[in-house]
Amino acid sequence: MLDNPHFKNTSTPTLFPVRLSDLASKSRPNSTRFPVAACLNGEVVGLQTIVPTSGPINLDFLYSDSAAALEILRHSTAHLMARAVMRLFPNVQLGFGPSVENGFYYDFSLEHQITEADFPQIEAEMRRLTEQGGTFECLIIPREKAERILESMNQPMKLEHLRTNLREFPTVFFYRQGEFLDLSRGPHVLNARMLQHFKLLSVAESNWKGNTQKPLQRVYGTAFFHENELEKHLAHLEEARKRDHRILGKHLELYSFDPRVGSGLVLWLPKGAVIRQQIEAFLVERLTGYGFQRVYSPEIGRAGLYRITGKNPYDSESCYPLFEVERNDCYVLRPTCGPQHVTIYQNHPRSYRELPLRFFEFGNVCRYEPSGELSGLKRVRAFTRNDTHIFCEPTQVATEFRRCLEMLRDNLRMFGFKNLRIQTCFRSENGVKYSGTQEQWEYYEAMILEECRRLGLPAIPNGEVHPEGPGIDFVAEDSLERDWHFGIIHIDFNLPSEESFDLSYVGTDNHLHRPVMLHCTPLDSFERFIGVLIEHFAGAFPLWLAPEQVRILIVSPKYETYALQIEEALRSRGIRVFGDYRSEKIGAKIRRAQLQLAPYMLIIGEREAEGKTVAIRDRIVGSLGNFTLESAIELFLKEIREKTLKYEPGTV
Amino acid sequence: MLDNPHFKNTSTPTLFPVRLSDLASKSRPNSTRFPVAACLNGEVVGLQTIVPTSGPINLDFLYSDSAAALEILRHSTAHLMARAVMRLFPNVQLGFGPSVENGFYYDFSLEHQITEADFPQIEAEMRRLTEQGGTFECLIIPREKAERILESMNQPMKLEHLRTNLREFPTVFFYRQGEFLDLSRGPHVLNARMLQHFKLLSVAESNWKGNTQKPLQRVYGTAFFHENELEKHLAHLEEARKRDHRILGKHLELYSFDPRVGSGLVLWLPKGAVIRQQIEAFLVERLTGYGFQRVYSPEIGRAGLYRITGKNPYDSESCYPLFEVERNDCYVLRPTCGPQHVTIYQNHPRSYRELPLRFFEFGNVCRYEPSGELSGLKRVRAFTRNDTHIFCEPTQVATEFRRCLEMLRDNLRMFGFKNLRIQTCFRSENGVKYSGTQEQWEYYEAMILEECRRLGLPAIPNGEVHPEGPGIDFVAEDSLERDWHFGIIHIDFNLPSEESFDLSYVGTDNHLHRPVMLHCTPLDSFERFIGVLIEHFAGAFPLWLAPEQVRILIVSPKYETYALQIEEALRSRGIRVFGDYRSEKIGAKIRRAQLQLAPYMLIIGEREAEGKTVAIRDRIVGSLGNFTLESAIELFLKEIREKTLKYEPGTV
Repeated sequence: MLDNPHFKNTSTPTLFPVRLSDLASKSRPNSTRFPVAACLNGEVVGLQTIVPTSGPINLDFLYSDSAAALEILRHSTAHLMARAVMRLFPNVQLGFGPSVENGFYYDFSLEHQITEADFPQIEAEMRRLTEQGGTFECLIIPREKAERILESMNQPMKLEHLRTNLREFPTVFFYRQGEFLDLSRGPHVLNARMLQHFKLLSVAESNWKGNTQKPLQRVYGTAFFHENELEKHLAHLEEARKRDHRILGKHLELYSFDPRVGSGLVLWLPKGAVIRQQIEAFLVERLTGYGFQRVYSPEIGRAGLYRITGKNPYDSESCYPLFEVERNDCYVLRPTCGPQHVTIYQNHPRSYRELPLRFFEFGNVCRYEPSGELSGLKRVRAFTRNDTHIFCEPTQVATEFRRCLEMLRDNLRMFGFKNLRIQTCFRSENGVKYSGTQEQWEYYEAMILEECRRLGLPAIPNGEVHPEGPGIDFVAEDSLERDWHFGIIHIDFNLPSEESFDLSYVGTDNHLHRPVMLHCTPLDSFERFIGVLIEHFAGAFPLWLAPEQVRILIVSPKYETYALQIEEALRSRGIRVFGDYRSEKIGAKIRRAQLQLAPYMLIIGEREAEGKTVAIRDRIVGSLGNFTLESAIELFLKEIREKTLKYEPGTV
Repeated sequence: MLDNPHFKNTSTPTLFPVRLSDLASKSRPNSTRFPVAACLNGEVVGLQTIVPTSGPINLDFLYSDSAAALEILRHSTAHLMARAVMRLFPNVQLGFGPSVENGFYYDFSLEHQITEADFPQIEAEMRRLTEQGGTFECLIIPREKAERILESMNQPMKLEHLRTNLREFPTVFFYRQGEFLDLSRGPHVLNARMLQHFKLLSVAESNWKGNTQKPLQRVYGTAFFHENELEKHLAHLEEARKRDHRILGKHLELYSFDPRVGSGLVLWLPKGAVIRQQIEAFLVERLTGYGFQRVYSPEIGRAGLYRITGKNPYDSESCYPLFEVERNDCYVLRPTCGPQHVTIYQNHPRSYRELPLRFFEFGNVCRYEPSGELSGLKRVRAFTRNDTHIFCEPTQVATEFRRCLEMLRDNLRMFGFKNLRIQTCFRSENGVKYSGTQEQWEYYEAMILEECRRLGLPAIPNGEVHPEGPGIDFVAEDSLERDWHFGIIHIDFNLPSEESFDLSYVGTDNHLHRPVMLHCTPLDSFERFIGVLIEHFAGAFPLWLAPEQVRILIVSPKYETYALQIEEALRSRGIRVFGDYRSEKIGAKIRRAQLQLAPYMLIIGEREAEGKTVAIRDRIVGSLGNFTLESAIELFLKEIREKTLKYEPGTV
């Protein structure tokens, strides 16, 4: 007897035991959407699974258009790649080979240095194996037998993993596909024939479980169920590669690094500094409008200040070492600005009349990131946060939270980011020590969901939880449809608490109360945000951000005098203008200006010089016609003032 | 026979040997201006000096209105004070007792803890001695005899000084005045009767030649030739005490320190941050107008970067300790931004077409100042410099130097500083190792003097010499007539040199040339500059800088709605406005606003609410009459835009 509705769809009676793949073949709605795995009594399993009896079960198939199915496909493709590598390099030893965001990887220990030049050969081998096909067979093997198998296969890393991380399990899972046998929890696709649309992408240095003494070679790839999805993804990757902010940043002279100064320490070149300065000015205006007051606090501080937080961030791996300034008095390069803002709050006794108090700072902080993780502007060792802290009465929290949500939402929209979502960072029962009581968490979690709902911001779960209190991350898509986490809003129960800084204010009742503290970063660090912006705009910034806003080109040297007057008029109105007065063909100059992404050109020839006009040329649509100088300036200033996104971000 | 014109003024023939005081008595033009010492053959000597023969001499009297005479008076008053202290506390041992800027001090070793409560007694004793009078007698004594004298007097510090610093001199000078005998180079005034106008001011901890194991008590005082000068000086001191930025800074909630954060590390409170933000914005505009481009660089850097400068600033006492980030890779909290800007210059090969390149940065730097020298904002351990560096061709140096002079001059004038002077920092032959050749120094020193002359800026010698190259300091007077050093312009021969960063550019001739580097700080650090500004303005900032620009006061609660409209209108135009809507008498509210130094008040009563106007009240002159809201806003915005100094700085 079957009591699961899925089974009812089958027209023929089912005989037990039954393989899920047999059931699946009956629930295949069409060729583009088909079952890949199943959720059986709450557990994701492969279609290899055999349902032994007709007892009550709960079954849902996972279809090929789900994220979970795609993960399984990629995990299986990782196995396929390992099998191919092992056929080509029989002495290879295997590390881990999981699916990851947008693809998969496998870590190999191998004398031969794998390069991208090896990819065609590996891919060809994978393709051969795909054509051969063959099921992924699931084997449940007792520990001791598993050890003997791995010893005989000469796979010391797998063996070590079995003996350490898996030592408590009496039986373990293996998957076999052809001659390839691998310790793997699975699940996997049913047959290698499904693994048709894949591509190897890159190879990077890696190591075995963080041990730099045991280097590995990590080969990344990606896979999809359909060829058109793979093609679209590869096109995006190609576009992203062209737009890589590390390449554009160098090409456009936005920033640089210098090994003499130190790894991960950004030198903002004048053009990049313009962008940063504009974003800073924008944020100052925005934050001031929302009632935030600027403060400045020092980048170094006594270690004891951080000890009060009870968190010892200076002990963590990502902190620079302490330095002893006076005997037994150690200082730290601050990793956060929170404690400093708390001391500003405590400058004098506070009254309810002063609340909410909203502080903001563009605070330089240092984090010691491992050199392997440094990546252009996106991962650096010293950066400037736009850090804000709100101190308010409990009754004011909902309004303050909503205002922050609104501000962050509008900030991100203004830069043209799409598909804004809220990822909630709520308490989960995982043994972490949380600040605040369970009641507080529940109360504010409900409040957060309600405020997101009010603003129509979709809330998705599983953001990174901060033990200090509940909060949210903003997630948004850039012009390449990649998700980015920007900006957070979090409640902090820790710093105001009695055990930490013991904050208070005098309420209307003339008694002391404890304020609620909110922490909000409106745009993430300037470094990371601008790193993302460079790629999002493909270097072609909207006018208000463009380091060069207008380029003046002359048709012949005899118009230089007039051009210089125009140049001076624009500059005196604050427009960032450059004159290209070289004696070259005008066409060559226009091409160069376009390559260098100047948003507007002013072309000065006989007609313009005589009529005292300028011919405006837009980088994308070309000639806009002739304008008087004043109306041209007004056109530029309006676009700058309104921070117009004239074109879809990424249009070049 | 006398061949010095000074002697010709005497009506009677002079007999040799002659005491200078006898000649002086004949050249006493009036009671307020009289000779105090003399310059004899180029050496300053007391009037006690006897001219032995009638051989050719060169003699000029130093009159009581000269700075040199005032120094002598103060040095002698220091002796007078020591004599008085010794009469009151016979066991006192003496350290040094020189004249200093604006006064004198004497260091005492004494069991009794001197406090200001002892001053009246010491001053009374000094006055008694003054009334008694008695010459300051100059004794030239052979070393060995001098040692015996100091031993018998039980003055171990003087004895040690004689045996170390003075060990090469066969004879030494003593001065005797009454029973008081002191090892002293002099010169001194002729008679204690001249020491009538003095005042003891403070007592501070000191020590013997920097040895903190040998603590001393330093008593400060001042002295003048005329009572009215003393009174004026004491009034200035009293005013300065009231305006002390440490007191005003706390009272006006501009900044604070917190021992938990660390000594000398400023926390800018919101109101102080407003001032800083305005000055930053002003400087950005000013520097941009002068063709400077903003850059940002990291506050930490590899020690090796500084090693390239050949200067090891990180070894100096004022640097924080190095911290080892990776094995044998030490980092430093940067003390300067120069090397970072040089690396930005080197970002790509430079052409003469790009020069002059002018970079500016508001760069955070750290200097570890001894805790005894920390003083409010004026001496801190982490501060933000407005640091600029110009890289140019040798032919461009004069113009660039002149533009910097002009910019600094206009900056200081804009804040109302007076009596601007240029102190030149030129090479002197003192064994220091200079960068650059003698010819370069001579060439640029002449150029600097010429550029100062062109701008009509008086140049005075003896600025602090930087071995990197010649330069200047700006000196200006604040509203209390105190001199401050603000901003420098220096040529740096070191960093561009082959031994250091080896900078170059491709010239018109297609060959490599070495650029000249100028270093200019337009306003000193924001911390120190604002510390001075607080005292200069006595906390009453001009409108564009005032944290609170306009305060709205209502005559009765029924006008609050209208007042809130006014408040919102002003705020939306960027005016920093605060509403005081407490139910108090309007007079009390006005007094509070005045005490809190709000530049303008808007008084809202029946007449204003009905006529839709506002009554403006100026903090100094009182009522300005009724205005429409729009004309009031225009009045404020104009004063802000033009950065008007409506009143003399310091007017409260």
